[in-house]
Amino acid sequence: MSYEVMNAMIEPLDRLEVLSRLEVEQLLNNSSGGLHHLFRSCALAVLNCDGELDDGRLLLERYSDFDIRVHQVARGIRLELLNAPARAFVDGKMIRGIHEHLFSVLRDIVFVHDEITNNANIDLSASAGITNAVFYILRNAGVFRSMRASGLVVCWGGHAISRNEYDYSKLVGYELGLRGLDVCTGCGPGAMKGPMKGATIGHAKQRIDNGLYLGVTEPGIIAAESPNPIVNNLTIFPDIEKRLEAFVRTGHGVVVFAGGVGTAEEILYLLGVLLHPENRGIPFPLIFTGPESARAYFARIDDFIVQTLGEEARQCYQVIIDDPVAVARAMHSGVEQVREYRRQMGDAWYFNWSLTIDPVFQHPFAPTHENIRGLALHRQQPPALLAANLRRVFSALVAGNVKDEGIRAVEQFGDFEIHGEREIMAPVDALLSAFVAQGRMKVTAENYRPCYKISDF
Amino acid sequence: MSYEVMNAMIEPLDRLEVLSRLEVEQLLNNSSGGLHHLFRSCALAVLNCDGELDDGRLLLERYSDFDIRVHQVARGIRLELLNAPARAFVDGKMIRGIHEHLFSVLRDIVFVHDEITNNANIDLSASAGITNAVFYILRNAGVFRSMRASGLVVCWGGHAISRNEYDYSKLVGYELGLRGLDVCTGCGPGAMKGPMKGATIGHAKQRIDNGLYLGVTEPGIIAAESPNPIVNNLTIFPDIEKRLEAFVRTGHGVVVFAGGVGTAEEILYLLGVLLHPENRGIPFPLIFTGPESARAYFARIDDFIVQTLGEEARQCYQVIIDDPVAVARAMHSGVEQVREYRRQMGDAWYFNWSLTIDPVFQHPFAPTHENIRGLALHRQQPPALLAANLRRVFSALVAGNVKDEGIRAVEQFGDFEIHGEREIMAPVDALLSAFVAQGRMKVTAENYRPCYKISDF
Amino acid sequence: MSYEVMNAMIEPLDRLEVLSRLEVEQLLNNSSGGLHHLFRSCALAVLNCDGELDDGRLLLERYSDFDIRVHQVARGIRLELLNAPARAFVDGKMIRGIHEHLFSVLRDIVFVHDEITNNANIDLSASAGITNAVFYILRNAGVFRSMRASGLVVCWGGHAISRNEYDYSKLVGYELGLRGLDVCTGCGPGAMKGPMKGATIGHAKQRIDNGLYLGVTEPGIIAAESPNPIVNNLTIFPDIEKRLEAFVRTGHGVVVFAGGVGTAEEILYLLGVLLHPENRGIPFPLIFTGPESARAYFARIDDFIVQTLGEEARQCYQVIIDDPVAVARAMHSGVEQVREYRRQMGDAWYFNWSLTIDPVFQHPFAPTHENIRGLALHRQQPPALLAANLRRVFSALVAGNVKDEGIRAVEQFGDFEIHGEREIMAPVDALLSAFVAQGRMKVTAENYRPCYKISDF
Amino acid sequence: MSYEVMNAMIEPLDRLEVLSRLEVEQLLNNSSGGLHHLFRSCALAVLNCDGELDDGRLLLERYSDFDIRVHQVARGIRLELLNAPARAFVDGKMIRGIHEHLFSVLRDIVFVHDEITNNANIDLSASAGITNAVFYILRNAGVFRSMRASGLVVCWGGHAISRNEYDYSKLVGYELGLRGLDVCTGCGPGAMKGPMKGATIGHAKQRIDNGLYLGVTEPGIIAAESPNPIVNNLTIFPDIEKRLEAFVRTGHGVVVFAGGVGTAEEILYLLGVLLHPENRGIPFPLIFTGPESARAYFARIDDFIVQTLGEEARQCYQVIIDDPVAVARAMHSGVEQVREYRRQMGDAWYFNWSLTIDPVFQHPFAPTHENIRGLALHRQQPPALLAANLRRVFSALVAGNVKDEGIRAVEQFGDFEIHGEREIMAPVDALLSAFVAQGRMKVTAENYRPCYKISDF
Repeated sequence: MSYEVMNAMIEPLDRLEVLSRLEVEQLLNNSSGGLHHLFRSCALAVLNCDGELDDGRLLLERYSDFDIRVHQVARGIRLELLNAPARAFVDGKMIRGIHEHLFSVLRDIVFVHDEITNNANIDLSASAGITNAVFYILRNAGVFRSMRASGLVVCWGGHAISRNEYDYSKLVGYELGLRGLDVCTGCGPGAMKGPMKGATIGHAKQRIDNGLYLGVTEPGIIAAESPNPIVNNLTIFPDIEKRLEAFVRTGHGVVVFAGGVGTAEEILYLLGVLLHPENRGIPFPLIFTGPESARAYFARIDDFIVQTLGEEARQCYQVIIDDPVAVARAMHSGVEQVREYRRQMGDAWYFNWSLTIDPVFQHPFAPTHENIRGLALHRQQPPALLAANLRRVFSALVAGNVKDEGIRAVEQFGDFEIHGEREIMAPVDALLSAFVAQGRMKVTAENYRPCYKISDF
Repeated sequence: MSYEVMNAMIEPLDRLEVLSRLEVEQLLNNSSGGLHHLFRSCALAVLNCDGELDDGRLLLERYSDFDIRVHQVARGIRLELLNAPARAFVDGKMIRGIHEHLFSVLRDIVFVHDEITNNANIDLSASAGITNAVFYILRNAGVFRSMRASGLVVCWGGHAISRNEYDYSKLVGYELGLRGLDVCTGCGPGAMKGPMKGATIGHAKQRIDNGLYLGVTEPGIIAAESPNPIVNNLTIFPDIEKRLEAFVRTGHGVVVFAGGVGTAEEILYLLGVLLHPENRGIPFPLIFTGPESARAYFARIDDFIVQTLGEEARQCYQVIIDDPVAVARAMHSGVEQVREYRRQMGDAWYFNWSLTIDPVFQHPFAPTHENIRGLALHRQQPPALLAANLRRVFSALVAGNVKDEGIRAVEQFGDFEIHGEREIMAPVDALLSAFVAQGRMKVTAENYRPCYKISDF
Repeated sequence: MSYEVMNAMIEPLDRLEVLSRLEVEQLLNNSSGGLHHLFRSCALAVLNCDGELDDGRLLLERYSDFDIRVHQVARGIRLELLNAPARAFVDGKMIRGIHEHLFSVLRDIVFVHDEITNNANIDLSASAGITNAVFYILRNAGVFRSMRASGLVVCWGGHAISRNEYDYSKLVGYELGLRGLDVCTGCGPGAMKGPMKGATIGHAKQRIDNGLYLGVTEPGIIAAESPNPIVNNLTIFPDIEKRLEAFVRTGHGVVVFAGGVGTAEEILYLLGVLLHPENRGIPFPLIFTGPESARAYFARIDDFIVQTLGEEARQCYQVIIDDPVAVARAMHSGVEQVREYRRQMGDAWYFNWSLTIDPVFQHPFAPTHENIRGLALHRQQPPALLAANLRRVFSALVAGNVKDEGIRAVEQFGDFEIHGEREIMAPVDALLSAFVAQGRMKVTAENYRPCYKISDF
Repeated sequence: MSYEVMNAMIEPLDRLEVLSRLEVEQLLNNSSGGLHHLFRSCALAVLNCDGELDDGRLLLERYSDFDIRVHQVARGIRLELLNAPARAFVDGKMIRGIHEHLFSVLRDIVFVHDEITNNANIDLSASAGITNAVFYILRNAGVFRSMRASGLVVCWGGHAISRNEYDYSKLVGYELGLRGLDVCTGCGPGAMKGPMKGATIGHAKQRIDNGLYLGVTEPGIIAAESPNPIVNNLTIFPDIEKRLEAFVRTGHGVVVFAGGVGTAEEILYLLGVLLHPENRGIPFPLIFTGPESARAYFARIDDFIVQTLGEEARQCYQVIIDDPVAVARAMHSGVEQVREYRRQMGDAWYFNWSLTIDPVFQHPFAPTHENIRGLALHRQQPPALLAANLRRVFSALVAGNVKDEGIRAVEQFGDFEIHGEREIMAPVDALLSAFVAQGRMKVTAENYRPCYKISDF
C-alpha cells in the first residue's frame, strides 16, 4: 500500500522563528550529536495529524523517504519538506495549524539543546534544576503569555475510545469553554481531541478569540499521538517526566476520561504527587468522568487505586458520571479555590511552584527489560513511592505498545516482565486485562498482542 | 409545564450601540407606532436559541411574562430583561454571543424604522429603492466590514434534518472553512447550524480568527429559527423578500442541503432570479448536496424543477452526493470565477449589484388565503415568473407551519387553498407529500397536520 | 506664481466607505442639488494641509483646475484626483492621514445629505431635532466608538499665533497626553495643531496607541483651517452652530489659548450656554491659558467678559498663566468631577445630553450685512442672550476675514456695520483693535485690512 | 540640594516578564556574583530619564538611597522601588514607557547572565561566538519581531547639541517617519531623542501605529544617556563593543548628526568595519547631516577622516547640509539597495550576517591608563586597524567624561595619556579642541576640564 506524499517549501509565520547560523547548522547535522534525526521524526509526526495511526515505528517506515531541511533566506529561515504526508495539506497548501506546529517543534528542539541540556546554570541532576528546565521550556514556548486569567484545565484520557466516549468528551470541553476555561491535553486523537473541539465551539459562542489549546508532548509519544491542528500552542519536552511535570505545574485542574495504559500512567503520577506529605492542603481539582457506559470502567479504576494506594488516595478525586455541566461547574469552582489559594500564598498563577515533586517522579525512567524487572512493586513503601513505581510499569507498557524504541525492544528481548507482590500484581493484572478486553490498548485493537508478562511473589 | 426564566441587566459590548434619546423613546413605546412589540418578540427569539422549538406562536405563549426595557445610563444604554429563558445564560451569566445578538436586533429595528421606512430618499415602491434598502441595512450592520476577500458561501437547508444529514452539513462546513471560505445561513438549527460549527473548526485549524458567520433573518421567521450563538453577525431584515435578496447579493455562492418548504422557497427564489434573461452569463455557483441517504431526495427536487421550470433551470446547479471535499472544491473554484467576473466588470465584491431581480421577487407577499388562491400557477408564463409564484406558495406554507401569524390565520380561516394547472400541481403535491413523509415539515414531526389543500384544473 | 500639483487614484482604507450606486451618483452630480461642488471644495481644503494659507477664496482660485471624481470598482469605490496640491504627498504617495480625511469628508457629506437634511424623522426647526442631528453625525463618524474613558479635552485658540505661544500649546498637549486625556480641536494650524502634537508625544510615552485626536469642522471654515494629518477622526458638520454644539456636547472640558475673532466667538458661545439658568450646577471645566507673554492678552479678554456679560460669567472659567502642568492637573480633576456628575445623573459619558442650549445658539446665523446690522447689542437683555448676539458679531468677522463667501460679501457690499450700545461697543472696539495690533486676525497679518466698522448709540 | 523621590510598587505589563525562582534570587543577590548591583544602577538610569544629567557617578551619588527589589507574587513578579527619582512619575503614577524600560533592564540582565555569559554553547573568545551573542540578545529582546519590512535607520549624534541642531534632528526624524522608516538610537537626549520625536509625528500622520523606536545601550553609558520613554524597545548589551555591533547588524543605514567624542567613536567603528576588504560591495547607506550651522563641523570631521584613514574612507559616506527631505530620500533609496542586495545574497533582513567584523572591533577594550598608553596610533598599519585604535581612544574619552568608572579612574590616576605619531595626533588634537570649544564634551559644558593629554613622536 502506498501513501500520498507531497513536497513543499514553507516559511515561518512570524519573526519568532529566527535562527542563528549556528542553530541552522545543528538542525542540518545528521551526525549523532546533531539535531536532524530528532527534528525529522517529530516533524513527521506533526504532519501525520488525524492519521489514525498510533504506532511510531510504523509511521517512520511508511514515510521512510520523508525529509525536512532548513534553509537560511532573506527574511529568516525556510523549511523544505520532501515526501511529506499529503493529509497535512488542503488543495496543495499546508494547513496553517500544522505549519505552526512544525515551527514549534523546531523552536523547542533548538531551545532544549542550546539552553537546557548544555547550560551550566541548570543542574538537571537536582530536583530544582529539573523544575527550572520545565519552567524555561514553557516560558520560551510562550505558554505563560498565552495563559489567561480564567484557568487551564488538563484533559487526560485514551486516544482509542468509542464514538460515544468521544462525543462525551466534546460536551465536557464545550461546557468548560462556555465557562471561559482553556484546555490542555497530551495531543493526539480521542479524549485529547474531543475537549478541544468542544471548547472551540464554547469559546466561539462566548466570543473568546484568544482561547488557549495547549498541547504538551515529547519526542517518544508524538509519533503515536499527533497533535491536532486545533492545538494553538504546542510544546515539546525532552522526556515523559518533564512533560508530566509540565501538566501538573501549568494546569489548574485535571479532568480524566476513560483511557488505557497511558491514562493510568498519568493518574498514578498525579496521585503520587498529591500524596506527598508536603502537598497536603494544596487544592488541586481532579475529576474522573465519562458517559453512562463508562461507569463500570471508573469503578474499576477506583478499585485499583484503593487496592494499591489505599483509601487516602481516594480523597484526591471525585467521579462524575454522565453530567458534563456538573463536571464543568465542579472544575470552575475548583479553579476558583486554586486562585484563592495562590493569592493567599503569593504563588504564581501560571506555574504551580508550591507543589513538591519527589525526584523519583522527575528523573527519566528508561523502560529497559532490566529496569522493569528491578521495580519495587510491594506495599513495604509509602503509597507515593509505590505510585511512582507503578507509574513506571504503565510507562513501559505505553512504550511497548506504541513507541518506536519500545516496540523494537520487545521484538528483540521478548515481553516485559512485571514482577511484584501478589496483592499489587492482582489488581494490575485485572486492570490490564480489562484494557485489553475493552480495546483500550491500541487504535487497531482487534489483534492486540500484550507486550508484558505478570508474575508475583 | 413551566420553563426556567431569569431576570438580567445587560450593557452593550461596544460603543456602536449608542442611541439618541428619541430612539430610546421609540423602543419603549408600546403603542402601535412604537417599536417595543417588535423588539420584544425578536429579543425573545434570540434568547431562546438552541431551544429546539420551531413554533413562533408557542414561543410567545410559553414566555408570555417576558419583557425587555431600554434604560439610558452614563455610558450609553442598558437592557433590562424580565423572565427571560434561562437557557441563554451559563451559571447566571448571559452567553456573550446571545448578548451581541440582542443588540443586533436593537440596531436593525431602530435603523429600519429611522433610516429606511421613513426616509424620503429611499423609494420602496421601486426596484432600485428596495435594493438600496437591502444595501443600507447590510452596511449599517457592519456586514461589508466583516466580509473577507476569500468569499462568503450561503448555506440553505432544513432546520428539521436527521443526525446523519446534520453531521454531513458539519463536514461540508469544515471543508469550506479549511479553504478559508465564510458561511452565511438563515440562522436556526439543523442545516443552518451544522455548516457554521464545521467552519468554526476548519477556521481554527487554519488560524482564521476573523471568520464571518453571517446570520440573515426577519421578524417572522426568527422565532422559529433562533440564531445560533456562533453567528457573529446577525442582521434582521424587515421582510422575507429583502432577506432573500440579501442572501443572493452578499453570497458568492450557495450550497443547498436537504430541507422542507422553506428550502424549496429559497431554491425557487434563486432559480427564478438566475433564469432572468439579463442574468445570463453571470457566474453564480449553486450546489445541491447531502449524504448518500439524501440521494433520492435530491433526485426528487431535480425532477420537480425540471417538471415545473424546464431543462434550462437544471443548468443553474449541480448535485454532489456524499462528498464534502468535492463540494468545497467546486465552491472554491466557483467563487474564483465570481471574483474574476466581478473584476472584469468592475462590480463590487461585497454586493452583487449586477444581478437583476425582477420586482415580482422583491415586493413583499402577504400569505393571506385570498392572495394564495389568486396565484397564477400554470405554464403560460415565463419560467422565471412561474418560479416567483411557486416561491410564494412555499412561502405561505412556511408561514402556516411555523410563523405566529400564519398559524393563527390557518386556525381562523382553514387550510390554504393552492390551485393551479394539473401539470404543475402534480409535482407540487408529490413534493409536499414527500416532505411530510420524511418528517421535513417541522421539528416535532410525528403529528404534523398539513395546512394546505391542493386542487388543479 | 504656480503651485505644484499631482494626479492620483486612491482607494478607501477600509470597508466603511462603501457607497450605494445612488450615493455615487449624487457625488458626481454637478448640479445645484448635487454634492459635487461641496465635496470638491472640502477635499481641496483637506489636501492643502500645512499650507499656511488661511484664505478660503484664495485657495479655490489657486487650485482652480483641481477636481475629484468617484468611481465604482470591484471592492468599493475609488477617488480620482486631478491637479491636487503636491504637499499632500510624500515621494508621490499620499500621506495616509490625508487619505483618511478625504474619505471622512465623503462620509459626512453623504450622510448629512441622506440621513439628516432629508430625513422626516429629524425636525431641524426644533432644538431637540438639531441636537439629535449633531448626535447622529458624531455617531456615524465613529466618534463615540473612538472616545476613551479617560476624557476628551477641547482646545481652542488662534491659528495665527507666535512661535512662543505655539510651543506653549504643545507643552499643554503633552501634559494632557501624559495624563491620558484626548484632544479635540477645530483643525487648522497654530493652537489647533500644537496640543495634538504634544499629546501625540505624551501618549507615545504612556504607550497609549488608541489616543483620539478629534477634528471638528464645517465646510465654510475647513478651507481656512485645513485639518492637520495627526487628526485621526475628522468630522464635518453642516454649519458653524452644529460644530459648536458638537464641541460642547462631546468635550469634557475646554482649554482656551490666545486667539482672534474665531476664539472670541467660541468663548462667547460657551459662556452663553453656561450662563443659561438650567445649566447651573453642571460641572464644565474651562481654562484660559498661555505663556507669560499672553498674560496681558488674557487680562484683556477677562475685562471684556466682565464688561459685557458681568461678574457672573467670570465664575465659569479660571486663568492659568505659564504653567502647563497646572493646566493639565486642573483639567484632569475637572474631568473627574464631570465623570462623577454624569454617573450620579445617569447621563451619557460620550455626549452631554444634560446641557441646555438655547435655540438662539443653535439656529444657523447667516452673516449678511443686513443680519449684522440688525443684531441687538445692548444690555437690556439677559447676559446669555447678549452673549449669543456678540457671538454672531465675531462669527461674521471670521467670515469676512477668511471664508470664501464672507470675503466676497465684503468686497461687494463694503465693511460689516456693527452697531450697538456704547457700553458694549467700546469693549468690542478695544478687543478688536488689540487683535489687529497683535496680528491675530490672519496668518498674513502685516497688511490686514479690517472688514468692519463700529458705531454706537 | 535635594531631589524629589518616591516609593512605588510596580507590576509587569505582560507575561513575558516571568522569572524562575532562581532568577529572582540572583536579582536579589547583593554579593559580587549577584546581579543586584547592576540591576540597581541601570534601573536608576532608566528612572532618571529627561534628567539632563550626563554624569553616571553624580547620578548614583545623588540618589544614593535608591533601591529596587524583586518580589514573587501570584501572577508573576513585582518590583519595589525605594526613593526613586520623582520625575519618572506623573501625578504619582509611573510613566508607562519608563515602566516598560525597567522590565527591559531586568530581562536583559537576567538573559545575559543566564544564557550568554555562562552558556557553554557560546564561545565569547571567538568572533562568531560574539556575533551569536549579539544575535541572541536581540532575539530575546523581541527586536526581530518588532522590526518592520520598511527598514531601520540608526541615528547617531551628540547628547549635548544646540537647540537649532536638535530641531534639525527632529525634522530629519519626521521625514524618515513619513517614509515609513523606523529609528534606532543609543538612547539619551539631544540627537538621540530628536529623530524619535520627529518620527513619532511622521508615523502618526501615516497611521503607522507599530513604528519601532529602538534604543540600544550598555550598563556603562545608560546612566549618562537615559533612554527617552518614546523608545519602545530598549535593549541593553553587556559592553560597548556588542552594542556597536548591534547597531551595524540591525540597522539598514546610519545617519550621523553633530556630536562629540561618543559620536567620533561610533564613526570610527563603522568606517573601520566598512573598510574591511571583505565588506567591499556591501551597500551600507551612511549620511552625515546637520543644519547650516553644522557645515563647518562636518567639514572638520571630513578632514579628520581623510587625514587619518585616507581618501578611501571618504567613499563610505555622503554629507548633506540643511536638507532633511534629501537626507530621508537618500536613506530611503539606500535602504532599497540594501533590500535588493540581501535578497540577491539570500541574507537575512533583520540581521546583517554578511558584514565581516574584525575581532579587534569585537573584543571589549578596558579604558585603563595603561591600555590607552599602549595603543598603536600610527600609519604603519591598515586603515581599518588604525580606525580600531582611534575608536578606542575616543571610547576612553567617553568613559573619562561621563562614565562612573572612567571618572573615578581619572581622579585617581590623572589624565589619560594619548601618544602617537604626529601626523595622527595633530588631527586628533584639533578635533578634540574643536569639541571643547563648541561645548560638545558634556551637557554642562561651561566648566569642562579635559581628561586627556596628547603627545606625539
